[in-house]
This record gives sequence, structure tokens and C-alpha cells, in this order.
Amino acid sequence: VRAASWLERELDEQPDALARLLDAEAERAVELAAVIDAARPDYLLIASRGSSSNAARYAQYVLGSANRIPIAFATPSLYTLYGTPPRLDGSVVIGISQSGASPDVAAVVAEGGRQGRPTIAITNDETSPLAAAADHTLPLHAGPERAVAATKTYLNSLGAVALLSAALARDERRLAELREMPQRVAAQLERSREECARLDAYADAEAATVVARGVNYGTAFEVALKIRELSGVLVEAYSVADLLHGPIAALGHGRLAILVAPSGSASASMAECAAALRERGAALVGISDDATVLARVDTRLELVPGTPEWLSPLVAVLPGQVAARRLARLRGIDVDRPLGLRKVTLTR
Amino acid sequence: VRAASWLERELDEQPDALARLLDAEAERAVELAAVIDAARPDYLLIASRGSSSNAARYAQYVLGSANRIPIAFATPSLYTLYGTPPRLDGSVVIGISQSGASPDVAAVVAEGGRQGRPTIAITNDETSPLAAAADHTLPLHAGPERAVAATKTYLNSLGAVALLSAALARDERRLAELREMPQRVAAQLERSREECARLDAYADAEAATVVARGVNYGTAFEVALKIRELSGVLVEAYSVADLLHGPIAALGHGRLAILVAPSGSASASMAECAAALRERGAALVGISDDATVLARVDTRLELVPGTPEWLSPLVAVLPGQVAARRLARLRGIDVDRPLGLRKVTLTR
Repeated sequence: VRAASWLERELDEQPDALARLLDAEAERAVELAAVIDAARPDYLLIASRGSSSNAARYAQYVLGSANRIPIAFATPSLYTLYGTPPRLDGSVVIGISQSGASPDVAAVVAEGGRQGRPTIAITNDETSPLAAAADHTLPLHAGPERAVAATKTYLNSLGAVALLSAALARDERRLAELREMPQRVAAQLERSREECARLDAYADAEAATVVARGVNYGTAFEVALKIRELSGVLVEAYSVADLLHGPIAALGHGRLAILVAPSGSASASMAECAAALRERGAALVGISDDATVLARVDTRLELVPGTPEWLSPLVAVLPGQVAARRLARLRGIDVDRPLGLRKVTLTR
Repeated sequence: VRAASWLERELDEQPDALARLLDAEAERAVELAAVIDAARPDYLLIASRGSSSNAARYAQYVLGSANRIPIAFATPSLYTLYGTPPRLDGSVVIGISQSGASPDVAAVVAEGGRQGRPTIAITNDETSPLAAAADHTLPLHAGPERAVAATKTYLNSLGAVALLSAALARDERRLAELREMPQRVAAQLERSREECARLDAYADAEAATVVARGVNYGTAFEVALKIRELSGVLVEAYSVADLLHGPIAALGHGRLAILVAPSGSASASMAECAAALRERGAALVGISDDATVLARVDTRLELVPGTPEWLSPLVAVLPGQVAARRLARLRGIDVDRPLGLRKVTLTR
């Protein structure tokens, strides 16, 4: 019997890890919401890299729509390489990093502090340089993550953003919806594991494109990153709108496209995108619970129905994680240390 | 003799188009800088799609470092699909669109107006819906663009951003540097045209990755977009920092990587990236005038030396445009209407 990889264990830990975060940090989220409210910010500046940038994309949609707060993403090289940080008046500065060890993310948060802005670290390590640089920390409670590919820390970063959004909105209904997510995550993982062999036909794919719109824009990037870092397949991500602005040109002739399309405001647009891609001859995989989308794809990775749209990124990423692990196994790759990657990248 | 394509003519028109913009709009840029100064914005919100988003990425670096103004990118679907636009207090809203016909870009600018924010359109069509939605327009003066792939409108969008930055900084030296650019663009086009056969070995490539850092981050995306829409090759773009965070895993085994690395603050980091990619066995193309970078790549697309770093994106995109045209020709594609694309995309 083969010992389970760290990746497999950490994938399976996700429902418990999310439940731990929600139990432990609901009160702190209310305190942090008070810090943000008191600053009356014109916008939040988020610094992040890798998977954490995909959680930042989730924040842009959720905080933008539920809390009406604009989000700007920091360009860390302005703070490090060029040494010319922008004026941050009117902002609250948030760093998201599972390890908290990225020097450039910490540099943005430290500059926020120097300019007198309130700063918050969202990190899995309360003793990290990022946590030390920030006024306040929202710990992820994911437990140690040993696999190179982030899974439970990504899910909990989404959970932390959702918790903050519900606290800022003082919205008890949303908080209750969030509290149901560990159960939904468990159900989705079980379903996705049962269906993962559906992707075996694509084991030899050289490249793929992941497409989404709206609140799942970040999910598309995270699914692309997961497949790429685990399997070595070259995968990119686009919003529907940007795809139609030119990049769709490359997606004919049997090219592989993965649509992330939970039911909701974006699904009509995603169904149209499926039709346009099918017309061009692309091979289509659909991560969806929307009947129209599922009817238009070649391969269905079904989502458990009934998840509120604003929380759909917490389940929609899971079939992507499972698919990435499966593709890597089929290609004979060590999923805990794929292609010589290290866990922490120290870009300055 | 084959008639020149629109794309070829428009590529060649770029030095004249840029000179037209700089001659016609230097004064208006000063007026717009006064509008922005008067608003004392905490940040600028930019709405854009496609190539214009790559000009927006340039704005993020140039206005961030030279003018210390943070830039946030709008997520148009919050304004259209979800109908829940964020509060835009403290912002000046800028729409960039060569056609001015993208409804979602105009929707963001219109919302800025409804919320009482100053709004500016940067567009090649002063009679477009975008121009109508904005308080002020900075026209691009590129002349009609008939090819699907944007070339001269992209260059002039960069020129407009540079003009605005120099005006905001009241920096005569920078303005003088900008006025030398039409000449540099002409010299670069000539050089790149002479060298374009160097890429013929890659005519059958299925995929490529473009990498840059700092002020040329947007150039990487624009080169990727140009190659993709003209040739059908699947091309993606990354900053060095994000590449090292995982996606580098896919870049071994003869995969094609294109480094955009003009000399300057980012070139040491790009030279390190070249070494890391070479070690993994990637095939490397370098768009550079930096000796260390050029020594580490397989194929050199050389930049004319001496361009100030902040203006390097105006020349660094040109070898990419020329390469994209060449790859398309080698693949037998009609560069004026590649793969069924239309000129204007009307995403709502």
C-alpha cells in the first residue's frame, strides 16, 4: 500500500481546516472589521503572490459587491526594486501570504505602517515576518502545510476574506451561510474524487486554458496554477470578457478549455462562452452545477448544488485541485515535490 | 507583388502616429493633470480590456513611481453583471479603450460620473460612447486602425500615459525624453524587422511564456496577446516573481520562454531568471539591450540602446509585434483577420 502523499492528506483536511478557522476567528474578524470601519478607507490595498493573489481576486469581488469597498493590488516591485512606493493615503493595507515569509509582501505592509496606515496580515504563521510587520493578524488555522502546492491554506484564505466581508456587513445570514461551508466542502471533495477519472483522456494535454467570470475569476487562476505546478501542463486563465478580446483565437483545433461556472449571475455568460468555444472545436471541461453549461461541455466535473454564489469559489476550486493531483499522478510526478519546486519563494 | 497588409502598414505608421499624439496633446495633458491635481485623488481607477489593460499596467508602474499615485483596476462585472459598483470616493476614474466602444469600460466611467468623480477617457475615437461618458477626453491621434491586432493604438496609449505622467510631475526633462521616442521607435522597428527571421526556428511552437518585471510587466502581457491573436500559439505572461512562485514548473524540456528585459532596475532580476530557465532546459528568446541577459539566451531580439527605463515599454513591445506578424505569416494566417476575430468586442 502506497503511503498517502502530503498533498492528498492536506486536500482531505480542508473541511476541518475551514471549520477551525471559522470557529476560532469569527470574533477577531469583527474586531478587524471595526479597525477597517474606523479608518473609513477609500480602498484596501492588498499585497500577495501566487495562490494568495487568487484569494485577493476573490476579495476584490466579494468586498467590492457586498461591502462596496474597492480593492487595489500592490505592485511589490515599486516598494522593493524601484524604491518609489506610492502614497497610500486613504487605504488600509492587507498582506496575504500563507507562509508570511515573502519579503516583498512584508515590504508593502511595512511601508503602509511607515505611512501611518492601518495594516493587517492574513497568514498561516503568526510568528512570520509578515505578521511582525502588520498591526493586526488574522491567522488561517490551516495547520502546517507540507506539500508544495497550497490547498488548505488557499481555502482558508478564501474563508478569511469571506469572514471579514460578513463582519464588515454585519450580516448574520451571510455568516450562517459561511458556517455551512465546511460541510459543503466535504461533500464536494467526495464527489470530485469519484469523478476524477473523467479527466484521464486529457493526460497527454500540453496546454489548457481556464475561463471564468465575476466572483470565480480568481478560481480560474487558482485552478490553472494548481494544474500547472503539479502536472507541468502549461495552463493559463482568463475572464470571459478578456478571452473574447483576442486570446480565444488560440482555442480551436482540439485545444483544452476548462470552464469554472457555478450557477449564478455569471452562468449565462459562461454558457455563451461554452457555445463559442465549442464552435471553434475546443475540448471542453465544465466545473459547474448549471444545466446549460453542463449540457455544452464534453467532460463534466459537477458541483454540489445549492452553494450561495458569493461562497461558490470555496467549492469550485476543489474539482480543480483533485484534477491537478490526478493529472500529476498519471504523468508519474511526485505531487509533494513536483518538478523541483520549493515551498517558499523569497522574491525581494 | 503582394499588397501590404493593414497590420504591416499600421506597424510602420507607429513613429508618425506617436509624433502626432505628442504634438497635438501636450497642452491637453497639462490641463488633465490640473484636473487630477485639483481632485487630490487617493488613487486612480482604470477600466480597460485587452491591449488597453496592458497600457493600464504601464500606468500602474509609471504613475506609481514617478507620481506616487496608486492605480486600481476596475472589475467591470461588478458594474454590469452584478450591478453593485463599489463606492469610488477619493478616486479619479479613467477609461482606456482604443475604439471607445466597449460597453463595460464605458459603464465604469459612467458610474464614476454618477458618483461625482472626475472622469477621463483615453481613446482613439472622440465620438465614441466612452468619450461621451467621460468629462474629459485624451484622444490618441493614431488614425483609423483596420487590422484586428492593435499596434499603433497600443503604442499611443502608452504615449498618452507617459504624457500624463510627465505633465503631473511638471518634469521638462521627462517630456524631452518622451519627445525623442518617435525617432527611437523608428530605429527599433528597422532593427526588429532585420532580425525577425531569427524566430523561424520556433514556427511550430505550440505554446510560449513571456516574462518581465516592473515597468515592462504590461509589455510581457502585450507581447503574449499579440503572438496569440496573430499566430494562434498559446502564450501566457508572468512577472518573474509570480513565475518563481510555481508556474516555472512547466518551463523545462524545450519549452519556449521570451524574456522582455530592457536594461534598468529589473535587468539583474531578469538575468537571474534567464539562468534559472536555462538550467531547466527552456528555449530562451531575449528582447533586451542588457549584455548579461543577451549572453544567456538562445535567440536575441536586440533593443536599440539608450532608452530611458520609464519609456522602455514603448520600444520593447516592437520586437514582439514584429515576431507575432512573422510567426503568423509562417503559419499561413491572414494577419488582418486572424482566426475569425472581430475588431471590437462588445462585452456587457
